[in-house]
Amino acid sequence: MSGARLSDEQLVDWLRLIRSENIGPRTFLALINRFGGAGAALEALPALAAKSLRGRVIRIAPRDDILREMDAAARMGVRFIPLCDPAYPLLLREIPDAPPVLSIRGAAETMQRDGVALVGSRNASTAGLAFAERLARGLGREGYVIVSGLARGIDAAAHGASLETGTIAVLAGGQARPYPSEHEKLVAQIAERGLLVSEMPIEWEPRGRDFPRRNRIISGLSRATVVVEAARRSGSLITARFANEQGREIFAVPGSPLDPRAEGTNGLLRQGATLCARPEDVLEALAAGGGGGSAGSLFDMAGGADQGPFFEEFEALFAQEQIASDNFALSQPTADAREHLPDADANYAELTDPRERVMSLLGPTPVAIDDLIRTAGLSARDVQGALVELDLEGRLERHGANCVALVGNRK
Amino acid sequence: MSGARLSDEQLVDWLRLIRSENIGPRTFLALINRFGGAGAALEALPALAAKSLRGRVIRIAPRDDILREMDAAARMGVRFIPLCDPAYPLLLREIPDAPPVLSIRGAAETMQRDGVALVGSRNASTAGLAFAERLARGLGREGYVIVSGLARGIDAAAHGASLETGTIAVLAGGQARPYPSEHEKLVAQIAERGLLVSEMPIEWEPRGRDFPRRNRIISGLSRATVVVEAARRSGSLITARFANEQGREIFAVPGSPLDPRAEGTNGLLRQGATLCARPEDVLEALAAGGGGGSAGSLFDMAGGADQGPFFEEFEALFAQEQIASDNFALSQPTADAREHLPDADANYAELTDPRERVMSLLGPTPVAIDDLIRTAGLSARDVQGALVELDLEGRLERHGANCVALVGNRK
Repeated sequence: MSGARLSDEQLVDWLRLIRSENIGPRTFLALINRFGGAGAALEALPALAAKSLRGRVIRIAPRDDILREMDAAARMGVRFIPLCDPAYPLLLREIPDAPPVLSIRGAAETMQRDGVALVGSRNASTAGLAFAERLARGLGREGYVIVSGLARGIDAAAHGASLETGTIAVLAGGQARPYPSEHEKLVAQIAERGLLVSEMPIEWEPRGRDFPRRNRIISGLSRATVVVEAARRSGSLITARFANEQGREIFAVPGSPLDPRAEGTNGLLRQGATLCARPEDVLEALAAGGGGGSAGSLFDMAGGADQGPFFEEFEALFAQEQIASDNFALSQPTADAREHLPDADANYAELTDPRERVMSLLGPTPVAIDDLIRTAGLSARDVQGALVELDLEGRLERHGANCVALVGNRK
Repeated sequence: MSGARLSDEQLVDWLRLIRSENIGPRTFLALINRFGGAGAALEALPALAAKSLRGRVIRIAPRDDILREMDAAARMGVRFIPLCDPAYPLLLREIPDAPPVLSIRGAAETMQRDGVALVGSRNASTAGLAFAERLARGLGREGYVIVSGLARGIDAAAHGASLETGTIAVLAGGQARPYPSEHEKLVAQIAERGLLVSEMPIEWEPRGRDFPRRNRIISGLSRATVVVEAARRSGSLITARFANEQGREIFAVPGSPLDPRAEGTNGLLRQGATLCARPEDVLEALAAGGGGGSAGSLFDMAGGADQGPFFEEFEALFAQEQIASDNFALSQPTADAREHLPDADANYAELTDPRERVMSLLGPTPVAIDDLIRTAGLSARDVQGALVELDLEGRLERHGANCVALVGNRK
């Protein structure tokens, strides 16, 4: 596909269609292939829904809403890149549920280069953070763009270490609602030197369930996904699953069996992920041709050639997307949405208690207390206090020269 | 092979033959297969050596030495089990360089059960030790005998945790010279409830090079070898290599890429070892039929059927065993043997230079200099000297609180 730039009017139609109730990426593609364009699909949609959904009314995104979104985007320096645009990233275009329209903010050329996704726990260990940085630097130096999800922990470390070489943060919400809010400075840095990517309406407040679906974009932009640290039910494992479905390479960083933050990654290794203990592990596998994905274009702008029983197909897609992609409802439940924010990137609750925070940063590998203080973002006094508590509970192991570790579970 | 018990006189001949200069297990087998028995082989040996080794004289073990060894053994409760004996462990009999005679002390029936070798670093981490114990208990509970090398660290933890369920310590030296000496109490416990195994003359003081060859017996007694923690050049990797050559399963316990003690195990995983993060990983693989080895008997008591050019074969075996098995010289270089005891469990034999030794113990994870001194087994002065050298070469990274690391290949 050579690609085509949309007129402003066409873009409005594309945005209206993808922002309409129950229209996900697959249905979107089916509709415009069927009707030859988004405008025609919008016209056909009410009758189509009436017929295939037994009278249920589909809420179509109002034109005014889209115009407002486009205005807000323009003010923020956010641009829309439709799937048919030559600037749309090739690797992402290959996945079957590629977002029909990406909104981007920052250095657009970043997404023309091959990405490697680095993902992992929010409450990462100091060692995990250090390794994520090393990996990001090593891959960045070789020309790969680091793709991640802006979450606390591994994600933020990966972005921070690849600001100079190229970094892409994929948002679960809209461009005006990056999450978490304490990464404001990082967001500004990425907007200036890297790229922020979203498929959601610009003011969309991310909900818990938006994170898993976002993860398919992280893996989709990347030739490989590297999971650095992940507990058993970590959202990073969802990213790995998407990478697998997309035919991309999956790497996992090994960790001690006594460290619960390694359960997920060790599990991936058991299932056949490639071991990553140094940047070269990824570089060599990719140089050998891994992670290319399939080159076929799923998108057929000409459309109209479909012969099959379209209504049944449409209905099936509808049902499927309601489950799989959790389609956007245009009326967002705001208010206490944040309270329910489970942060799919790690599934961990806020660790504001110093003791919990310090615990979360420790594992069986001894780390220097100085490093611990630095990564905890707490005062030395708070960290030392927490260490004394852990010490008294018999959970701390003090090593020479101010290094500490958690006592392993002697089961 | 149904097996045969040797008469005392035959045993004397077997021991004389295997204790003779340059006679290793392969040559031993070739000789008794050729001549029909050890006695005949001993008679033929001088002429054979004169012909095939161009006049070099082979020192044959004097009968009196063997009688003295047998007396000493009887006093210690040590028994000799020749390869043809029904009590000789089946798994070990399968390997091509099985010891012709094992000396055993303890509960002989222990070696009738399938073994799993647990091996790893001497300077293990607390987490590594805890995991070795968990693994030993989990495997022991399911009926497997734990086989290891009595070394400090992982080996000792594995033996300690399997005293009740079955444990075999394979010695690098003779039964009267278990190493290291501080495991005297553990040795007594194993002699009472488990089994101590050696192929060496009873008074043999272990030298550095005896440890690697000993490792083939550890893996040979075992359906699987699990490497718990191992630095890059650890002797445990030699055990894994033997296990591989013997067609047995190899498991490796993953660890943080920032922990130098995981470099060896992560390397094994990269090469295709099976990941072990819980006892079930081993149990399930073995239940599925792994690690059986080949069932063929390599031993042909009848012998004499060889048609090939025997002298060339003999000569080749001689040369091969001098390299591979480092045959026993009967005159042991005693004196400062212990000083050079490199602890083959870590294969530091060649690392007598403090700088090399310190290098070998360092990695990208900052470690406390105190810990470094302790695990290096060098004086603080030597370690500090080595660190200064590395510093000047730009290879050292000094961290807060007296921690140091090697400058990572930050590529």
